[in-house]
Amino acid sequence: MAKPYDVNEQTGKDMAAARAATTIQVEDVRNHLYNSAGEWESRRKITEVLENDPVFDKTHRDFLPRTERYTRGMALTNRVYELQVQHGWSQQQASLAIASLDEQLPINLHNVAFQPVFNLQGSPELVSKYGPLIASRGIFGCYLQTELGHGTNVSRLETTATYIPETSEFEINSPTLTSSKWWIGALGKTATHGVVQAKLILGGKDYGPHLFFVQLRNMNDHNPLPGIMIGDIGPKSGSGFAPTDNGFARFDHVRIPKEQMLSKFAQVTDDAKYVQPPHAKMSYGGMLYIRANMVTGGGWLMAKAATVSIRYTTVRRQGEVGPDGLENQVINYPSTYYRLLPILSHAYVFIQLGKQLTKSFDTLATRLAKGDTSLLAEMHATTSGLKVLVSSTGVQDIEVARRAMGGHGYSAFAGLGRIYNDYLPSVTYEGDNFALDKQVVRAALKTLSTLIRAGPKVSASSLSPSSFYLRLVLPNSDSPSHSPSSEDWKDPATCILLLEWRAALLVQEMARNLEQPDASVFQRVSKAISEAFVARQVGEMIADAKGKKVGGGDGAAVAGLFLLYLLTAVEAGLTDLLSFGVIKTPTTNAIGFPSDVTRTLRLAIDKTCKAVLPESIGLTDAFGFTDWELDSALGVYDGKVYQALWQRAQAEPLNRTEVPEAYEQSIKPILIRGQRQVGVFLGDKAKL
Amino acid sequence: MAKPYDVNEQTGKDMAAARAATTIQVEDVRNHLYNSAGEWESRRKITEVLENDPVFDKTHRDFLPRTERYTRGMALTNRVYELQVQHGWSQQQASLAIASLDEQLPINLHNVAFQPVFNLQGSPELVSKYGPLIASRGIFGCYLQTELGHGTNVSRLETTATYIPETSEFEINSPTLTSSKWWIGALGKTATHGVVQAKLILGGKDYGPHLFFVQLRNMNDHNPLPGIMIGDIGPKSGSGFAPTDNGFARFDHVRIPKEQMLSKFAQVTDDAKYVQPPHAKMSYGGMLYIRANMVTGGGWLMAKAATVSIRYTTVRRQGEVGPDGLENQVINYPSTYYRLLPILSHAYVFIQLGKQLTKSFDTLATRLAKGDTSLLAEMHATTSGLKVLVSSTGVQDIEVARRAMGGHGYSAFAGLGRIYNDYLPSVTYEGDNFALDKQVVRAALKTLSTLIRAGPKVSASSLSPSSFYLRLVLPNSDSPSHSPSSEDWKDPATCILLLEWRAALLVQEMARNLEQPDASVFQRVSKAISEAFVARQVGEMIADAKGKKVGGGDGAAVAGLFLLYLLTAVEAGLTDLLSFGVIKTPTTNAIGFPSDVTRTLRLAIDKTCKAVLPESIGLTDAFGFTDWELDSALGVYDGKVYQALWQRAQAEPLNRTEVPEAYEQSIKPILIRGQRQVGVFLGDKAKL
Repeated sequence: MAKPYDVNEQTGKDMAAARAATTIQVEDVRNHLYNSAGEWESRRKITEVLENDPVFDKTHRDFLPRTERYTRGMALTNRVYELQVQHGWSQQQASLAIASLDEQLPINLHNVAFQPVFNLQGSPELVSKYGPLIASRGIFGCYLQTELGHGTNVSRLETTATYIPETSEFEINSPTLTSSKWWIGALGKTATHGVVQAKLILGGKDYGPHLFFVQLRNMNDHNPLPGIMIGDIGPKSGSGFAPTDNGFARFDHVRIPKEQMLSKFAQVTDDAKYVQPPHAKMSYGGMLYIRANMVTGGGWLMAKAATVSIRYTTVRRQGEVGPDGLENQVINYPSTYYRLLPILSHAYVFIQLGKQLTKSFDTLATRLAKGDTSLLAEMHATTSGLKVLVSSTGVQDIEVARRAMGGHGYSAFAGLGRIYNDYLPSVTYEGDNFALDKQVVRAALKTLSTLIRAGPKVSASSLSPSSFYLRLVLPNSDSPSHSPSSEDWKDPATCILLLEWRAALLVQEMARNLEQPDASVFQRVSKAISEAFVARQVGEMIADAKGKKVGGGDGAAVAGLFLLYLLTAVEAGLTDLLSFGVIKTPTTNAIGFPSDVTRTLRLAIDKTCKAVLPESIGLTDAFGFTDWELDSALGVYDGKVYQALWQRAQAEPLNRTEVPEAYEQSIKPILIRGQRQVGVFLGDKAKL
Repeated sequence: MAKPYDVNEQTGKDMAAARAATTIQVEDVRNHLYNSAGEWESRRKITEVLENDPVFDKTHRDFLPRTERYTRGMALTNRVYELQVQHGWSQQQASLAIASLDEQLPINLHNVAFQPVFNLQGSPELVSKYGPLIASRGIFGCYLQTELGHGTNVSRLETTATYIPETSEFEINSPTLTSSKWWIGALGKTATHGVVQAKLILGGKDYGPHLFFVQLRNMNDHNPLPGIMIGDIGPKSGSGFAPTDNGFARFDHVRIPKEQMLSKFAQVTDDAKYVQPPHAKMSYGGMLYIRANMVTGGGWLMAKAATVSIRYTTVRRQGEVGPDGLENQVINYPSTYYRLLPILSHAYVFIQLGKQLTKSFDTLATRLAKGDTSLLAEMHATTSGLKVLVSSTGVQDIEVARRAMGGHGYSAFAGLGRIYNDYLPSVTYEGDNFALDKQVVRAALKTLSTLIRAGPKVSASSLSPSSFYLRLVLPNSDSPSHSPSSEDWKDPATCILLLEWRAALLVQEMARNLEQPDASVFQRVSKAISEAFVARQVGEMIADAKGKKVGGGDGAAVAGLFLLYLLTAVEAGLTDLLSFGVIKTPTTNAIGFPSDVTRTLRLAIDKTCKAVLPESIGLTDAFGFTDWELDSALGVYDGKVYQALWQRAQAEPLNRTEVPEAYEQSIKPILIRGQRQVGVFLGDKAKL
């Protein structure tokens, strides 16, 4: 029988009970996620400073129109660097502070796009002249690549940089409307300088896109310099990226000194000759760095989505009444935990992958500095595939989490809509996912054809991690056909091998059908390749979690979460696995009907979810987010979500007056017209 | 060789060329979509009036903060009804005008939720007293169901309506914080009255939720009546539903006359006795009407998404250079048309389905008025499944379309972000999709068990349209196993039968495993059931298009589009089809590897897309949207997307001044601090 209870009070009790029921050592898992107790503590201290500073208050953020979001964003930025001086923060600590603000700020473009490109590709002279000023933000930069008429295909950019031998200058020009630089973050209102990508024209000949360091605004009054027209390109979808002034710029024959070409890898000599870049590939370094960071960043966003949605569905009760007389907690419904726990597993996996990638990038950078480009191809293949995987998974996960919260999930106060709309462009920027898929697949086809040419002498050990799955198409490989039992699904090796078979057979099939590909093949094959790579990494994460006994016991909780990643990845790949017969399908006989061969897998997923479920509050607490960081009424630490929603609604600007402005202007005229139509007048009646 | 060309001019040429290449008779298709030339013309005239009225100008909409979006929304509403008087529009024409505004307005809640519930469930006396005033909007209503603490499960709502026999009144009360009515559209600032759902308490006994007509604000000054606390619940995710004042209300022992209980189906007698509703089910009618409308509405939103994205990708050129020296049009890439043309097919299918459903609903309403509830169960099963299908497909399609437009798709000016965020709650309101899935599946399981009990005497002809697929599990059915050839995929019957087998086998498998369902089974089975129903309908649409030669020729273009719907539905169901062996998988032999059995299907999809592609501009023009209706810089009729983007950006509020407010406050301090750090001062230099 349903018992009446104080729904609001119950939320706090439910959260406390869930927290008490967690068996893992939350601090231990947290330190694992943050690399060490020291790193966590350092981060916590910075967040504490920000939370207690009124400048960073978020109470009214959801109500601000875009111009005020921009103004506020710049104020936050200024305050962080003020605090850096006060507290003696390192450059890295200041970056951490910026990152923890949960805002898409113009300074990110200076730090992540402008500065690395300038330092990596500028000549030593140019870097020594401006590098320190850029590092201290004495000038504020942006990176001007895409144009109104062109994005991905940089070879067709229209902006020109014509060399004028007479004065040793370049003339930057926007010959057409569509050559306007467009979408450039921090350009619209903030940046004083920029790196401009433009076609180098030398003696009438087009040498393709090169980079030029250009001053945009004068340092005296911040007005655009003569010949440069600058503005903001307007609001973004779903109010995303509100504080960033994505901008446009048109150049009307603007002259810059010859020295301001970024000439580390390509130069124009004094006598107007073009010097070939010795290591053109080396200029990719910056892009790979951004993509590696995207994996970590995406992982932490999934962590936020998982935390908010798991906390809310733990305290939200609805539907069936249990023996305790209370309705069921929403997270206990299979259709809920089946949606949310995989997101939690994605968060753990991508955070770990990001850490590995950052390490690999450091190794790459050291080698590149010595002129060694041997690691570039592997790093390129890995980061392209992972960028696609993390961004498309992340965007989807944030929305799945929002939707799992039902009606209240649609409130801005739930906090996930904001994260979603800010993260949304990640699927198209830094390489559109559909374009990157093609690169991933082409790299795999190339490796396959090398393997085939090399013949039987090739051994699996010669394959790089991103191509390891291709060992399966070498001669003397085992049969691809499997019929995993319930027991088999407990072993990560089962999933890893299946995902590798899927990738190997898809790549091989594609190579066979190159003359007539179907329309979605690049997406399917690319995803299979990336998942095969990730699966093997996840296998190592499981071994690591168990080896280090992460979270206490034998690391089973964290290991189980990783296993859930693998099982759901296999589930998502079932069409391929069945189509190629990697998972054996039933033989139909004359009587009766066949049954679903995927059932053992689906039940294994359900079972793994049920094992993870009691630890889910602990596993999300381990991310260490504060209420200020999450800024979600539904994700509050104490579980009192209804109180939080109520309080936030009271601050809504429409509630400042009982009677809205629209009453006299529009509502009253509607009512009076309607009353006249039926011949009554209610205008001086309090009650009908 | 790549030829330089004026990218902006080319957009107009490309659109004109695509339009000229269309072979279908666009007007003919348009009249088919709008039922008749007359209906189209009537609609066009209304839109023309609105477009030419400055009140409906959309130039600054994207820049308005929420309060102003609300104020503007009320002004639009008032203006429509002013125009109704001026032009002598019927009630239906006024509704059409409201619908074509592309705004989520409070008046919709009055028209679609409040008025129908009041008319359907109020006593004849109450309806005759207030009905005319409601119809003329002399009072403005809302429908107060969900509470802060409860949504879907109405039996647990906490608001009470206690009968006071002494005064023949009900006392409406909100006993707790969580009993606050919440999410109620038009409640926050607009509505003067509402229908409140509250637990009826009679002589201390709880009779569960009933409906009460309650005045909320006084008619004199629009202030809330004593004892009623009202407010707006705040902004929504991604700035969705900005003009709607979703609100909260708390009642402090508010008395209303006994007559204001909506008592058509449940009454309290004068001596305080409860009278059982004779036809409780009949109160579902209103909900079914809303869901039927959602199918049509969703179809037209998909139509907008398809129009904008197909137009933009037709004029956007990128990448490979063709023999004409121009880059390829983005829509010509397989990965683009494979994403966009299915959306076009969904639009056509759901618009047609919506028309059929509205007809079925009219029949149902006529029968219900006579007390005949025999059609209710079928209508309920059909609309539940289709509501899930249309809303989840629609939300996904709008985002797929936005994403296919690459970087520019993320601009608010692209127009799809706005549509997306307004449509997003459709997956959780009017029955959360995950809750509805369970209802769809339970209805199917019930039908199956009836069939099994009835034994061999059952014939397929006794099955209702929503259960027709279950004929396949009757004895003497054919074998489910198929190996469709390339030729087979051209026949709609192939897809229809496969989709029916999928649903039948899934339902049967589920019935076998009721004791141990897996976590996602309701979603998979529900989708399969709905797709089987829709597939058969689509088969009829194909026959209809061919029979009537829609669009000229033999109706092949429209029929091809419908076929694409079926083929991609089969593709989405491949896991089930393969797992049950409905599509036969390869036998692996010792040497060599198996090949992909789904390949013939994938190639058939590609081929069908290629056949539809040259007609895609014609097929989207047939929707008849004006530029004002689409309000998208990327979906302009003339194709000049870059000009449109440029012009819109100039109106961005941040561009009103060259130097933003943030400069003195924050940017300058950042720059000066940075310059000091490296010991320079640039503050009076124009150029470095």
